[in-house]
Amino acid sequence: MLSEHKTELTVRYAETDQMGSVHHSAYLIYMEAARVEHLTAMGLPYHEMEARGVFLPVIDLSVRYYRSAKFGQRLTVVSRIQPLTGVRLRVDYKIYEGNALITEGHTLHAFVGKTGKPLRPPRDIAALLS
Amino acid sequence: MLSEHKTELTVRYAETDQMGSVHHSAYLIYMEAARVEHLTAMGLPYHEMEARGVFLPVIDLSVRYYRSAKFGQRLTVVSRIQPLTGVRLRVDYKIYEGNALITEGHTLHAFVGKTGKPLRPPRDIAALLS
Amino acid sequence: MLSEHKTELTVRYAETDQMGSVHHSAYLIYMEAARVEHLTAMGLPYHEMEARGVFLPVIDLSVRYYRSAKFGQRLTVVSRIQPLTGVRLRVDYKIYEGNALITEGHTLHAFVGKTGKPLRPPRDIAALLS
Amino acid sequence: MLSEHKTELTVRYAETDQMGSVHHSAYLIYMEAARVEHLTAMGLPYHEMEARGVFLPVIDLSVRYYRSAKFGQRLTVVSRIQPLTGVRLRVDYKIYEGNALITEGHTLHAFVGKTGKPLRPPRDIAALLS
Repeated sequence: MLSEHKTELTVRYAETDQMGSVHHSAYLIYMEAARVEHLTAMGLPYHEMEARGVFLPVIDLSVRYYRSAKFGQRLTVVSRIQPLTGVRLRVDYKIYEGNALITEGHTLHAFVGKTGKPLRPPRDIAALLS
Repeated sequence: MLSEHKTELTVRYAETDQMGSVHHSAYLIYMEAARVEHLTAMGLPYHEMEARGVFLPVIDLSVRYYRSAKFGQRLTVVSRIQPLTGVRLRVDYKIYEGNALITEGHTLHAFVGKTGKPLRPPRDIAALLS
Repeated sequence: MLSEHKTELTVRYAETDQMGSVHHSAYLIYMEAARVEHLTAMGLPYHEMEARGVFLPVIDLSVRYYRSAKFGQRLTVVSRIQPLTGVRLRVDYKIYEGNALITEGHTLHAFVGKTGKPLRPPRDIAALLS
Repeated sequence: MLSEHKTELTVRYAETDQMGSVHHSAYLIYMEAARVEHLTAMGLPYHEMEARGVFLPVIDLSVRYYRSAKFGQRLTVVSRIQPLTGVRLRVDYKIYEGNALITEGHTLHAFVGKTGKPLRPPRDIAALLS
């Protein structure tokens, strides 16, 4: 079990907008990249889960924006995977530039199969996440 | 005053992901496009606001996902601009495909100037939004 | 046969970057949206083609940038579908803001099946495109 | 002088489309990220150039697509900066997944000032690039 993980990334030019900082939608991409890296570090590479027919779409999310990140900055996404409850998985995130908190948020995911129907998570996955 | 507005858009191929439906981050772009169209319909083209040094960055948002939208679908974003409170503007959204509710959410915005400092909204803008 | 088509679109905020105009990658999305609308106008909705197992990935493209488009501008994409040659389809594009030419480019596509293998285009599709 | 550089990156989920591989526009973002990392490795961090009022917009590009990259794959972008000619800078790219060539392409850039007018590159920058 590895409930907290740090993912490092660098702000890309394409992620900025004409306000001169990162567009608010890009933080969802950062959180997703962090979630994938975190699951992989726990022994759950997301592409292998999908290959087994297990999908984790986002069903709810929130983000709070405190500061704006700038092009070229090195950001740290601290993700915290909450213990699994039924078919729902919740991940919390804080994104930092150095010590400055830029944004925080959460995503809630449902385990579903290929057709989108709710799915009980396979036992090995459930064991790693609980 | 025109507190509710409907924006029509068509799902682009680039907005899908390998799950076969719209990536969850794309709905923020749809909400933004709807917000801009709504403000324009109220007599507040956003590019003119920025040209006057008035910016409306997102400081908080949430989204709930009920169904997945698909490539080529025609979506309707119903946006509702809440009456202005101080330097904060809140907009609520519901996104439909036909009668089916796909997602709903809100964004909260702060009025700031070019340097990012909070700004009292200019009187004409405040009048239109209150 | 309808070899030329005009698609109208409005520049979204998220498509700008900190240079203050549309990011160069966004024009590929505009061209794709225009191609899809053009094919639909010809009686070939792209999502129906994919549902039949016929895919048209991009295998080559070029873009020339003459002017920069700005947030909120209304753009016209003039697309021209070239007569089909074997399993290759070429589309040329010019993107205008009013009378000003912003960019021009082309995309080249291969007909492939679900597994990515080259595919002879179905007879009805070939007939419409030649 | 450091004319060739390798940038490593991992395909993000958001960069895929419903064909099940990386959307063709994402490679422009990869090339841009590689170009920025390459210039930084040469002692020319792009955000510092912009802070000095020197911009390098793309004025021409081409891409050839040989294979499709998949979610989660580790890609290597090999960028090669060509010697500066006047106010034009050309960069060539090859993107690999292991030994497999995925795409190749080039971008051509103009040196311009804040208002978009052509600009003779400052002497120190020209020295590093020639």
